[in-house]
Amino acid sequence: MFNFQYYAPTKVVFGKETESQVGQLVKAQGCKKVLIHYGGGSVKRSGLLDRVKASLESEGVAYVELGGVVPNPRLELVYEGIDLCKKEGVDFILAVGGGSVIDSGKAIGYGVATEGDVWELYEHKRNATACLPIGVILTIAAAGSETSNSSVITKEDTLDKRFYDDDISRPKFAIMNPELTMTLPDYQTGCGVADILMHTQERYFTNGGNMEMTDQIAEGLMRNVIANAKILVKDPKNYDARAEVMWAGSLSHNGLTGCGNDGGDFMTHMLEHEMGGMYDVAHGAGLAAVWGSWARYVYKNCLHRFVRFATNVMGVEAVGTEEEIALKGIEALEAFYREIGMPTNFRELGVEAKDEELREMARRCANYVGGEKGSARLLKEADMYEIYKMAL
Amino acid sequence: MFNFQYYAPTKVVFGKETESQVGQLVKAQGCKKVLIHYGGGSVKRSGLLDRVKASLESEGVAYVELGGVVPNPRLELVYEGIDLCKKEGVDFILAVGGGSVIDSGKAIGYGVATEGDVWELYEHKRNATACLPIGVILTIAAAGSETSNSSVITKEDTLDKRFYDDDISRPKFAIMNPELTMTLPDYQTGCGVADILMHTQERYFTNGGNMEMTDQIAEGLMRNVIANAKILVKDPKNYDARAEVMWAGSLSHNGLTGCGNDGGDFMTHMLEHEMGGMYDVAHGAGLAAVWGSWARYVYKNCLHRFVRFATNVMGVEAVGTEEEIALKGIEALEAFYREIGMPTNFRELGVEAKDEELREMARRCANYVGGEKGSARLLKEADMYEIYKMAL
Repeated sequence: MFNFQYYAPTKVVFGKETESQVGQLVKAQGCKKVLIHYGGGSVKRSGLLDRVKASLESEGVAYVELGGVVPNPRLELVYEGIDLCKKEGVDFILAVGGGSVIDSGKAIGYGVATEGDVWELYEHKRNATACLPIGVILTIAAAGSETSNSSVITKEDTLDKRFYDDDISRPKFAIMNPELTMTLPDYQTGCGVADILMHTQERYFTNGGNMEMTDQIAEGLMRNVIANAKILVKDPKNYDARAEVMWAGSLSHNGLTGCGNDGGDFMTHMLEHEMGGMYDVAHGAGLAAVWGSWARYVYKNCLHRFVRFATNVMGVEAVGTEEEIALKGIEALEAFYREIGMPTNFRELGVEAKDEELREMARRCANYVGGEKGSARLLKEADMYEIYKMAL
Repeated sequence: MFNFQYYAPTKVVFGKETESQVGQLVKAQGCKKVLIHYGGGSVKRSGLLDRVKASLESEGVAYVELGGVVPNPRLELVYEGIDLCKKEGVDFILAVGGGSVIDSGKAIGYGVATEGDVWELYEHKRNATACLPIGVILTIAAAGSETSNSSVITKEDTLDKRFYDDDISRPKFAIMNPELTMTLPDYQTGCGVADILMHTQERYFTNGGNMEMTDQIAEGLMRNVIANAKILVKDPKNYDARAEVMWAGSLSHNGLTGCGNDGGDFMTHMLEHEMGGMYDVAHGAGLAAVWGSWARYVYKNCLHRFVRFATNVMGVEAVGTEEEIALKGIEALEAFYREIGMPTNFRELGVEAKDEELREMARRCANYVGGEKGSARLLKEADMYEIYKMAL
């Protein structure tokens, strides 16, 4: 196993009606003026935004608002948020929503506290020197951004979708009330489940540094997410199942499921980032659509892990050759995705991809990762193109 | 499941030679003068103390020293440390050792930063208002104090052994190099293993609020600790096994294994605290010595959990009545304790307890917990006395 650092300082406040504590939690940070950042109208329609404002007001915390975050959140709105915060003297970002809203909030936090154009961070030209403190009220179990150091932003004009990871953006608190996720459309619930599983799998399918304690957590997490996602297909208002998936979503991406490994594979995420930029598909659905092709392309190079996944997570009987067992594990996860309404290829994703688009995505992906990337199997541009083609 | 908070902000720096980073880590906290706090001479003999000083010096961080912490750490040394820190202008506590050293360091940190007699915190007469920042270089995998909010101190004259839990004492960083634990005597390794298992079991054997995600982590952790403890009996210098146990030790007591439950049982700890105060036995050995008797006294009141423990952790076949399965699980854990040289009763612990001592411990324990305590089964003074008697 490799040396590792683990740092997940976010205070999680989990359970029913916990959003009513937001005023106290912001006040405990010593902050005076909040940017309430959110996406579409659902936080208004559900009354959540009013409850948040009431809690802030009861603690004497001032606020301004900026809604309009879309999936694959846009740089333009980030710039708008930075300007607004500077003008209004905002000293705390409160993201009310899912991964896109949180990621956009982190970008605004960097942009206010660090000099210069914030996009340069996402281009990895330099590092942030500071970030406004961030709090989260989570409404979608998926991205894990509520406790992670990650943020992904898309630049509109070039469709560049880029990430920036920095511990200084880890949220100060994350309010997680599973009730807030009960009215999500089934498709969004499924997308979240795929994202959660992938955050663990990116760290699990590696060729170095595996630690049994980490594997035990990762496998338990994946089994638990799969079991509860099946419950939610039939009973979307099941509180316990919502809670299991929500908590697993944080644990899958706060670093815990990667302790001791070599940094992870993360090629499925890289491949999907280009798909998200090109077709504006939901992140989780994009991951599900490309994962099976990635897995079939790489499993022979990481056979021991795919065998372990098949038996310990997917319940495949240890009969036949290792390759057969591994393939059954891949098939079982794809069957699960279809059961919860997730795509397992581009066609099911609703994308009619042209060959030149696949080539363009492979070119951009390879360029983005510096030529090659991957732990399960090291992939270059030609490999990426092959995987996209397999996923049609 | 119940609502919960989870807060584990400690930055873990895990792996080989990580102690060389201590100077940088202290400096990153903006601190100028360190109290290096430790126990006996082993940190000197091993050269660890010299390496720590060299790292601090290379970053220009000044330090003073206070050694002499003993198991069941004493209040007197805490007072001495507080005086020393105030006199020397210390602004950072660096605990180099195991749970006793870290707990003593936390007490000193409270005492320097919070007005008044620090013992009043442990008497639960008031709460701390501040604590000096604390860093840890861990040399024994056991107490989990390196990431927890807990501290246990013993007052010499009355033998009162008391805890105080407060998030403001959670260490800023914990350096965890498994190599540092390789030279531990087998008995201390075994004590650590018992303590780690108990931190998870106190949260696992409850009658309310269990969450599957938490159970998956807890069960994986217990299986992993048991498997690796068996390896260490034969191969005490096995790095991977040391690492698995060390990391499990932190995760068992940072809150992760209790998320969603009712606050836990914690009666085995309460029973042992009196034993530690009365006989000055090693904490982990005391826990192992009393656990089986506690388990047999309570298991019928928490049968579903003991059955689950037996099958999912101890590998007991699900044959027979639930009571039979549960008892086999208890027996299996006791057999494991004997295998790693841990006691399963007072006699094996080397204590010839007199009946009036048992009565006195039960009286003090009941008084300490406010009359009654327990989730697996609510215990009063008479129950505590019975359990002590069963453990002879």
